[in-house]
Amino acid sequence: MMNKVRMGIIGLGAEGGMYAGFLADGKVSNMIIGALCDTDPAKKQMAAEKYPDIPFYDNYIEMMQSGHVDAIVTCVPHYLHPQMGIEALKRGIHALVEKPAGVYTKQVRELNEFAASKPELTFGIFFNQRTNSLYQKLKQLIDDGEIGAIRRTNWIITTWWRPQGYYDQSEWRATWGGEGGGVLVNQAPHQLDLMQWICGMPKKVYSNVKYGFQRNIAVEDEVTAMFEYENGATGVFVTCTHDVLGTDRFEILGDKGKIVVDGSKKITIKRLTTPESEMSNSMNMQDVMKIFMGQNTGDIFTEEVLEFGEAFGIQHIAVLENFAANVLDGTPLIAPGSDGIYGVRLANAIHLSSWLGKEIELPFDEDLFLQELNKKVEAENKYPVNQ
Amino acid sequence: MMNKVRMGIIGLGAEGGMYAGFLADGKVSNMIIGALCDTDPAKKQMAAEKYPDIPFYDNYIEMMQSGHVDAIVTCVPHYLHPQMGIEALKRGIHALVEKPAGVYTKQVRELNEFAASKPELTFGIFFNQRTNSLYQKLKQLIDDGEIGAIRRTNWIITTWWRPQGYYDQSEWRATWGGEGGGVLVNQAPHQLDLMQWICGMPKKVYSNVKYGFQRNIAVEDEVTAMFEYENGATGVFVTCTHDVLGTDRFEILGDKGKIVVDGSKKITIKRLTTPESEMSNSMNMQDVMKIFMGQNTGDIFTEEVLEFGEAFGIQHIAVLENFAANVLDGTPLIAPGSDGIYGVRLANAIHLSSWLGKEIELPFDEDLFLQELNKKVEAENKYPVNQ
Repeated sequence: MMNKVRMGIIGLGAEGGMYAGFLADGKVSNMIIGALCDTDPAKKQMAAEKYPDIPFYDNYIEMMQSGHVDAIVTCVPHYLHPQMGIEALKRGIHALVEKPAGVYTKQVRELNEFAASKPELTFGIFFNQRTNSLYQKLKQLIDDGEIGAIRRTNWIITTWWRPQGYYDQSEWRATWGGEGGGVLVNQAPHQLDLMQWICGMPKKVYSNVKYGFQRNIAVEDEVTAMFEYENGATGVFVTCTHDVLGTDRFEILGDKGKIVVDGSKKITIKRLTTPESEMSNSMNMQDVMKIFMGQNTGDIFTEEVLEFGEAFGIQHIAVLENFAANVLDGTPLIAPGSDGIYGVRLANAIHLSSWLGKEIELPFDEDLFLQELNKKVEAENKYPVNQ
Repeated sequence: MMNKVRMGIIGLGAEGGMYAGFLADGKVSNMIIGALCDTDPAKKQMAAEKYPDIPFYDNYIEMMQSGHVDAIVTCVPHYLHPQMGIEALKRGIHALVEKPAGVYTKQVRELNEFAASKPELTFGIFFNQRTNSLYQKLKQLIDDGEIGAIRRTNWIITTWWRPQGYYDQSEWRATWGGEGGGVLVNQAPHQLDLMQWICGMPKKVYSNVKYGFQRNIAVEDEVTAMFEYENGATGVFVTCTHDVLGTDRFEILGDKGKIVVDGSKKITIKRLTTPESEMSNSMNMQDVMKIFMGQNTGDIFTEEVLEFGEAFGIQHIAVLENFAANVLDGTPLIAPGSDGIYGVRLANAIHLSSWLGKEIELPFDEDLFLQELNKKVEAENKYPVNQ
């Protein structure tokens, strides 16, 4: 029995290169580099210098069939994630897909359905922020009902600043055909996943999405979305890439209290001593007046502040370690691959609402979404449409 | 020439009673009580005991014609504000209308049009929060272009907690026929006015309004609205009456910086040393990477924090004083009566969007709004429909 998973890294850009570094430095106790893969000759050259002893492939199928890897991770453009995941699983190779799981839910559903037919293989998704101890704690607080049933969610996450030069780096960036969207597909998938992981999936979505608002790009650089959940709770999600003074503030109101997360570093929990619905039904007008006048509110709630801080990279290492542990001994995955569809569904619903100018009920018609996406790809006339 | 304006207070409920107290205590240097008016015999009794020397009327027209008052203030249900304003101005009496100016823009427009035909008379609206030194400063910062052109606005104002007992106090409360709405009409008009006063009127509005969500009422106790402004900027406005741990956080992002107002008490201004659009166009990828890694961001902006605090009542006194000064010597009004229509238009657009389930362009068809409002009044079957 193996004691270290041999990982095949497909794509040696920023992410793939970082994972290779972590593995080469021995930062992941139960994983090593099995092989590297990239179609770019410059990357082959780089790998030959940096990792001379590691097998290199320019074809990922060949790498999968080489016997050098037990698993792969897909550090390639978003559109390719589902296909590479399926090709790996087909060959008995464990698959860790990068976020987002894909660009449209139809392709992600195909991946999920295929993966379901291979339960003996590990299928994970790279939602590194799920391993952040702050979000682990936040999920636990909500799951444990510490603030009761959710009434309202609100996340302003505009820390994804990207200047024009970022978009101009490569031809495919910020195009419909090459990337399939902007901030919703590239930067915000982490928060879309966290929001649904912690608060559940909305039932309805309405959005105002701005395409090329502050950048010279075809896709979106700003998003405002309104959610409605199954139980009637409401939500707001705001993100953009043009706020260099980025805000990251996540507020969740429940029947028994409120949680505010600031800068993904600090959780402030206010726990009501009596649930709000009871307070509303039982308070006499004298007590009410005291609250109106700002008096005597000290004893209606208690406050707890939790501070968090993690070194950069620790989350990525945690995902790799957890994935390998699942391969080796069945340790439960923090981010099962099949969870990837939720964030994609949410991003698609937000896009679709803005394209059709109406509220979208979830789950929506995924063929309709693909049709609308393909219209953009076709109008752009740089990449083939998706099947 | 008079040196103190003799005010006739119509309605001796919470607000009217408070203004009477301020005037009786000499807190407004240029205004005295001219007469009091209420249809409730209990209020007449109260006035006879508390203000034995002040003329009392149970008919406001009689009070206007008595010669005892130079001006009136309308501390009565919202629907009645326009009519009372018109009746006063018709008789050469200055009019200070309570907020909101009315329930629907059609009636407020009629008031404004009539007032425009009487330019010699003072016509004001009781937007006391405009006199708050924090909001005065905030308006000045924006007007002076300190953070450049606005890109995004976001106000979460859920400090308007009202328990069920509040709504059960009187028959007319929280009904379509008696009040014309909930938090949008009663509590939030201050912020709707401040938001448009400071950031301008949106061009488009979409909303999710919850009626009787956490309270047993016919009207709305929670509102989520999305705005789009003429220049393409976006906005979010959230308010409710069921959050006893109320949030009051107003964020404005501009091309040159960001302002966050916390709890209507603290302004944090971040001024960029270079406008964001220039940064985006001129930064090299090396500097960009530094910002991504959280380094070297100290010198891209400067931060200023301003703290404010005002005793309760001071804003109301300031409105009365400014109104009287306009009557006496033409001092400009902080809140001209004709401004009242903006907040009503915004509230109406938010309601209309939720009733029709679609985005509303401003200005909307005001007859359509009235027709839709009257449907609610009719279905409720407690009050006559509006003409």
